[in-house]
Amino acid sequence: MNILEVIEKKKIGQELSKEEIEYFVKGYTNEEITDYQAAALIMAICINGMTQDEIVSLTIAMANSGDILDLSEISDHIVDKHSTGGVGDKVTLILLPVIASFGIPVGKMSGRGLGITGGTIDKLESIPGYKTNISIDEFKRNIKEVGISLISQTLNLAPADKKIYALRDTISCTNSMPLIASSIMSKKIAAGANAIVLDVTCGKGAFMQEKDSAKKLAKLMSLIGKLAKRETVCVLTNMDEPLGKAVGNSLEVIEAVDALNGKIEKDVEEVVVTLASQMMKLSGKYPNVIDNKKLVSESLRNGKAFEKFKELVKRQGGDVTYIENTNKFEKAPIIMPVLSEKEGFVEELDAGKVGKAGVLLGIGRINKEDSIDSKVGLIFEKKIGDNVKKDEVLAYVHASSKEKAIECVENIRNAYRIGNKKIVKKNIIEIM
Amino acid sequence: MNILEVIEKKKIGQELSKEEIEYFVKGYTNEEITDYQAAALIMAICINGMTQDEIVSLTIAMANSGDILDLSEISDHIVDKHSTGGVGDKVTLILLPVIASFGIPVGKMSGRGLGITGGTIDKLESIPGYKTNISIDEFKRNIKEVGISLISQTLNLAPADKKIYALRDTISCTNSMPLIASSIMSKKIAAGANAIVLDVTCGKGAFMQEKDSAKKLAKLMSLIGKLAKRETVCVLTNMDEPLGKAVGNSLEVIEAVDALNGKIEKDVEEVVVTLASQMMKLSGKYPNVIDNKKLVSESLRNGKAFEKFKELVKRQGGDVTYIENTNKFEKAPIIMPVLSEKEGFVEELDAGKVGKAGVLLGIGRINKEDSIDSKVGLIFEKKIGDNVKKDEVLAYVHASSKEKAIECVENIRNAYRIGNKKIVKKNIIEIM
Repeated sequence: MNILEVIEKKKIGQELSKEEIEYFVKGYTNEEITDYQAAALIMAICINGMTQDEIVSLTIAMANSGDILDLSEISDHIVDKHSTGGVGDKVTLILLPVIASFGIPVGKMSGRGLGITGGTIDKLESIPGYKTNISIDEFKRNIKEVGISLISQTLNLAPADKKIYALRDTISCTNSMPLIASSIMSKKIAAGANAIVLDVTCGKGAFMQEKDSAKKLAKLMSLIGKLAKRETVCVLTNMDEPLGKAVGNSLEVIEAVDALNGKIEKDVEEVVVTLASQMMKLSGKYPNVIDNKKLVSESLRNGKAFEKFKELVKRQGGDVTYIENTNKFEKAPIIMPVLSEKEGFVEELDAGKVGKAGVLLGIGRINKEDSIDSKVGLIFEKKIGDNVKKDEVLAYVHASSKEKAIECVENIRNAYRIGNKKIVKKNIIEIM
Repeated sequence: MNILEVIEKKKIGQELSKEEIEYFVKGYTNEEITDYQAAALIMAICINGMTQDEIVSLTIAMANSGDILDLSEISDHIVDKHSTGGVGDKVTLILLPVIASFGIPVGKMSGRGLGITGGTIDKLESIPGYKTNISIDEFKRNIKEVGISLISQTLNLAPADKKIYALRDTISCTNSMPLIASSIMSKKIAAGANAIVLDVTCGKGAFMQEKDSAKKLAKLMSLIGKLAKRETVCVLTNMDEPLGKAVGNSLEVIEAVDALNGKIEKDVEEVVVTLASQMMKLSGKYPNVIDNKKLVSESLRNGKAFEKFKELVKRQGGDVTYIENTNKFEKAPIIMPVLSEKEGFVEELDAGKVGKAGVLLGIGRINKEDSIDSKVGLIFEKKIGDNVKKDEVLAYVHASSKEKAIECVENIRNAYRIGNKKIVKKNIIEIM
């Protein structure tokens, strides 16, 4: 085989065989195939697309390009969850303890935030002492003994995906459906999942802004899952406004703790209950989704999910007293309100603008190397559909300085649109 | 401007502006744009094509990427000639002295051979003493004083084209019409041509094997010439069988000398007369193509073209006694005949196969760094349409060793097809 033949085939729109795709993925990972040859092939894929078989072959080849996490000694029904990213998305922090509270083992490797999308690992690290980079043996032991572990990506999972992803970024090939879908699915498969629940976010604060694109992506990932023999459920969720009340690292942990104690925002609950009920079903032990929903709501109110979260934090070295009393979390020095300039209904709270304001505030990173401030963030008092009076508080900005606070107040005010229409939100768009 | 935006536009099939194309060509030449970004853009161009305006912008931008040869002090009617390459193509060696014999100044920078395509510079260097890499000042002085100079590419002409050409080779993007056409035309424009005659070869020994593709390329180059204000005439010539009798460096020089003395093969004469009559017309002094043809035939027979060739060789340091008596050229140690295995007509003499056999013999290079043997080559006694008896000589192989000779005899025999049909050849397919 020869990379020129592979490139030529895709250039003229022919289907690549499983062997040809494996040859490319292996060769590129080993640096036998150059960046410019990979760039040419990726561009040809972007323009000419890929068949279903090609997408599955690419997914599997990328999953097999590095370490594969083997959790089969723990369960043959490992269910993983992935979100395509959002603003204020603290779902994992609530969802996984819920699932674990039903005796379903959950071990998840999460990422850090980049751009407007927050990362679970950054949030967990705002809990003093919590260790995110424990060894794989310890990770497995925690899942076996406590039923849950949440860590950063210590393994070399799907390095081919990492290389291709970075390359796509530099050649304007980020928005190709086959490449996005295979990238996400390859990482999940490498992380040892037997079944996968995908939260495909859609709206102003998501990668997919249009419902049609999000649906297309969801369909494609479900199909990859099916063909790769990983049962996959996709839940399309709304990301036009931030999810829940808080955006920021420690602020989101506090909101998650409140939620695990039954004080949960309606939109967050809807997403958590929907994803959890599907995950429970995929675990093989809880076949009825409607029953599962009730069980999840109970678990959020009877303290069982909260207990699991405390066990997780304790086992990974975190200071549980912060979880028991969230007032212990250090506050940002400046807390400034965003006041409404007029009366009416919140017609829009643009999650994209909120995300960008948050990055400037220090919540997130523009580049991978940037440091973040775990204390800063935003608390939203008014969201889409809410009635608001003139000079009433829309949100609070938690900032590291007065200058940053003033800048952010302005940005957040611009994220709001107050008008006369009372909009009815829909958080779960579709389950596929 | 930003390379990602440029790549994105071409990826989705939009037209790039002149400024965007210039930005890419400059940036890639300066190494501000990486190979992988260029590869992505080139692939998008290969798949989505280019508009006429884009092709012209690319041609001009590549022409302007390095030195521009300014011959305006010599004439404002500098006519250049280019061939898309062939096997046994010694046309330049005959054509340029003919043109110069009419007082039309000709200064040409030629290339070396690569693959099955021979190079004029390799051929000239088989004349002892001939210097191909003289300075530009000397080159210009020779044109002024002798009316002719033929040298290798000493200037840094169209370096962007050189980079893009090399990249295309590694990403399976060699066969894109817009890129082939702009590559050829950019070099001619950088070499100072006001008008261009293009010999577009077509057939088994040419880059373009199909007449339709060759016509398309010719049309495109004529159009670029028109839009870039360089009058361009394309002559489509047949390259199914080698041109003339000889293939090889010194062997082709000998054939060229014979031709300049009136002993010229019919197919070579047809091509030389056609190209020369067009070049004379473009020079502005000889408007009538039919008259020109007669003048060219005369010049080949009255010794004037031969005199010009001798002046050229002498001025550039070559030993003219070799030209006056071509028996002085050292012969290859082994000369072996290829005998016909049956009686009939030559129905095919595959120039592609001949070219490959020639490379193995040492005429040409596979890689740029390979050395060549100026003595080795082939002399064809029988060509398409010729009657041949059993055991009659089809061709002679001039080789450096007996082993090479035996191998080549076999290869050349395979290039022949002897049958019952007397095929009538057509050397000039079309003038566009």
